[in-house]
Amino acid sequence: MNKIEEAEAVLGNLATAVNMLQGCPEFALLIPEVRVNLVYALPGARTPQEVAAVEGRITAVQGLPHASGMPAWGASDHLARRIIEVRKYDPTINAGINFKYDRTVMEIAQSYCSERGWLFGWTDRTREPDEVAELDGSSMPWKVKQLVDSSGGVPRLFYEGAGWGKEPLFVALGSRATEVAEIAIEIARRYREKTG
Amino acid sequence: MNKIEEAEAVLGNLATAVNMLQGCPEFALLIPEVRVNLVYALPGARTPQEVAAVEGRITAVQGLPHASGMPAWGASDHLARRIIEVRKYDPTINAGINFKYDRTVMEIAQSYCSERGWLFGWTDRTREPDEVAELDGSSMPWKVKQLVDSSGGVPRLFYEGAGWGKEPLFVALGSRATEVAEIAIEIARRYREKTG
Amino acid sequence: MNKIEEAEAVLGNLATAVNMLQGCPEFALLIPEVRVNLVYALPGARTPQEVAAVEGRITAVQGLPHASGMPAWGASDHLARRIIEVRKYDPTINAGINFKYDRTVMEIAQSYCSERGWLFGWTDRTREPDEVAELDGSSMPWKVKQLVDSSGGVPRLFYEGAGWGKEPLFVALGSRATEVAEIAIEIARRYREKTG
Amino acid sequence: MNKIEEAEAVLGNLATAVNMLQGCPEFALLIPEVRVNLVYALPGARTPQEVAAVEGRITAVQGLPHASGMPAWGASDHLARRIIEVRKYDPTINAGINFKYDRTVMEIAQSYCSERGWLFGWTDRTREPDEVAELDGSSMPWKVKQLVDSSGGVPRLFYEGAGWGKEPLFVALGSRATEVAEIAIEIARRYREKTG
Repeated sequence: MNKIEEAEAVLGNLATAVNMLQGCPEFALLIPEVRVNLVYALPGARTPQEVAAVEGRITAVQGLPHASGMPAWGASDHLARRIIEVRKYDPTINAGINFKYDRTVMEIAQSYCSERGWLFGWTDRTREPDEVAELDGSSMPWKVKQLVDSSGGVPRLFYEGAGWGKEPLFVALGSRATEVAEIAIEIARRYREKTG
Repeated sequence: MNKIEEAEAVLGNLATAVNMLQGCPEFALLIPEVRVNLVYALPGARTPQEVAAVEGRITAVQGLPHASGMPAWGASDHLARRIIEVRKYDPTINAGINFKYDRTVMEIAQSYCSERGWLFGWTDRTREPDEVAELDGSSMPWKVKQLVDSSGGVPRLFYEGAGWGKEPLFVALGSRATEVAEIAIEIARRYREKTG
Repeated sequence: MNKIEEAEAVLGNLATAVNMLQGCPEFALLIPEVRVNLVYALPGARTPQEVAAVEGRITAVQGLPHASGMPAWGASDHLARRIIEVRKYDPTINAGINFKYDRTVMEIAQSYCSERGWLFGWTDRTREPDEVAELDGSSMPWKVKQLVDSSGGVPRLFYEGAGWGKEPLFVALGSRATEVAEIAIEIARRYREKTG
Repeated sequence: MNKIEEAEAVLGNLATAVNMLQGCPEFALLIPEVRVNLVYALPGARTPQEVAAVEGRITAVQGLPHASGMPAWGASDHLARRIIEVRKYDPTINAGINFKYDRTVMEIAQSYCSERGWLFGWTDRTREPDEVAELDGSSMPWKVKQLVDSSGGVPRLFYEGAGWGKEPLFVALGSRATEVAEIAIEIARRYREKTG
C-alpha cells in the first residue's frame, strides 16, 4: 500500500467501526458526558493531524449512538496524542475509544480482561503534573509512563480516575478502530444485561 | 394560550435559539468537553420531561456549531433540574445554556454583567455534598441555594468551578432560550476578538 | 399571541411533528426520491420566508426517518408556495407534507379519505403549463386551481401524477404540521401491514 | 491488500470524497431534488451490497453540503447498479456521483470534457423500456448499452434527460470516489462563477 492507500484504509476502518457502534443500541448506555472519541492513527503518526477521528464525536440521539460528523484527520486532540504516546511503548497500538466509567463498567472490564489474559490498568489523575504541564503538552508522556509502569505494560483496557475538572473515563486500545469498537460493544452488551 | 400552544411556543423558541447558535461560527469556540446543553422549561415544570432541550446536545462539526438532534422534551437531565430549582428563587427564569469556562470567558462574562448591572455568580463545587446526595437528587437544591446566597440573588451569568470529575462550566440564565442564546453569542464574539 | 409567539408556535409544532415522524420507523418506507418536505405557514404568509420547513428535508438513515436539519423559515420553496396558494381556497390549511406515490399508497389514501368523508384529489401534470410558466411562478396558481376544480374543493390528500422530469408524489394538507404528520404516520403503518 | 483492506480502502476513499464535498460551499448549488448519491464499488462487485454509498445521501443544510449519514455498504441501489453495469464496458470505472442538470451545468460539463479530450454523453429516457423492465432490473443493461453506443464508449460525464416521473440528472464516472468528487467540485466552482 502506498501512503494514500494507507490513509484511506485507516479512514475506512474508522467508518466501519462507526457503523458497528451506530448499530448497537446498548452502546448508548456507555456514552459519557464528554461524548465518545474514536481514533485511529496512521503508522508513524506524530501529530493529531495524522490521526483520524469522528468529527463532533459520537453522541446519543433518540436513544441510539450517532456520529455527529464524518471520520476526518485531526478531529481529535487529546485521545490522538495519547495514542501517539502509547505507541512508544507498544507499536501495535493504533486505535482507541473512550467510554463511560462507573463501578459496573469497571467490574465488566476487569472480567473481560482476565478472560483474555489482558493487562488491565488505570491512571491516577490525582498525581498528574500541574496545569502548566498540561498546556505545554508535557503531561501526556508523564501520564502514559505512569499507566504503563503501574500496569506492567500497555493495558488493552484502563480507566482514568476522576481528576480535578475531569470526568473519569474508560479507554480501550487496539490495533484497529474496529477492534476497539468490538471491545466497547461487548462491554455495552454485558452492561445492558447487568443493569436491566 | 392553552397547554399545547404553550408547549409548542417553548419548543419553537428553542429551535429559533438553535438556529441563532448554528449561524454563529464564533460560538464553536465556546463548546466545552461535555458539549452544550440548551434548555427551556414549561411554566410550572416539575420534572425534566417538562423541560425541552436539544437531543444529543450541540457540538462542533467542521468548525461550526451543530445540533445533534431536534429540540425535544426530556432531552436534558442535569441542566433541566437546575432550571427547575432556580425558579424557586426567581420564577422569571425558564431557560439556560452552558458553555466553556476559562479565564478569558470569565473576564468577558464579568464585564458583560457589570455593563448591564446584572448579578454575576459562581458555585464552589469543592463544598458540594457527597456522591450519595448527588444520586438521590438532593444536591441540586443545595447547589442552587449556595449559588443564590453567595451571589445575592439569582445571577444571570455564573460559573461552576471545576470539581472532582467535573469540568468547570459557565451557565447563562434567562426567561427564554433565545435570550440565553443571545448572551452566549455576544460572549463568543468578544472571545473571538480577544483570542484572535 | 403576538407575532413572535405566533411564529414560535409554528416552529414548535413543526419540531413536534418531526419528532413524531422520527419516532415512526414505518414512515421510512414512504420517503420518496426527492425526500420529504414538511412545511407550516404563518397565518397570512405570502412568501416562502414566512413558511417554516425542515432544512435539508427528511431522509432515511439506518432505516429510520431522520431530519437533516432544524425547522427554519424559508427552508422550502415549492411546497411552501403550494400551501400559500391553497389557502386562497381554504384558509384553514397551513401545513403540508409530501411522501411517496405508488399504487399501494394510493389505495390506502383513498380508503383513508373515504373513511373520514374527506375529499381525495389528484393533479394532472401532463396538462401543466410550459416551463416558462414554471419559472415565472405562474404555474402554481394554475396547478392549485386545477386540483380544486377537479376535486370539488381542497382535498386533504392528493397525488401529483408523474410529469416530465417530475417524480409522482402524495401530499397531505391540514391545519397544523402535527396533523399532517399524523396522516402520514397512519398511512405508513397501513403500508407496512400491506407490504409486510 | 486482502479483501478486508480492499473494502476499507474503498470506504475510506468515500469518506475522503465526502469531506471534500462538504468543504466546498459551491457544491450546494448542484444538489438536485433527489439529493446527491456518491458511490464506490468493490472490484468485482455484483450487487449493491458490494457498493459503498452515503447513507441518506448528501443534502444541503444552512447552505452547505451535508452528508446525512456514514459511508456504508448497500446504501445505494440505482446508482450502484449503474456502476456495476458500466464496468462491463470499462473495468476502470468504480465510482460515480450524480448532480443537478440544467443548461448551465450542461455547457460547463461539455467544455470540461472537451478540455480533457473526454467523451461526453447522454441517455435518452424517452426511449427507455417500460416500467415492467425497470422492476425486473433488465432496464439498466439497456440504458447503459444505449449510453455507450451513443457516446462512442463510456463517457466520464453524461446526463440523463428528464423522463416520465424522473428528474434529469448529471453523472460523473471515475475510478475512485475522490476523482468524481473533484470533477463535481470543479463544475460547481465554474457554475458559481457563471451564475454569480
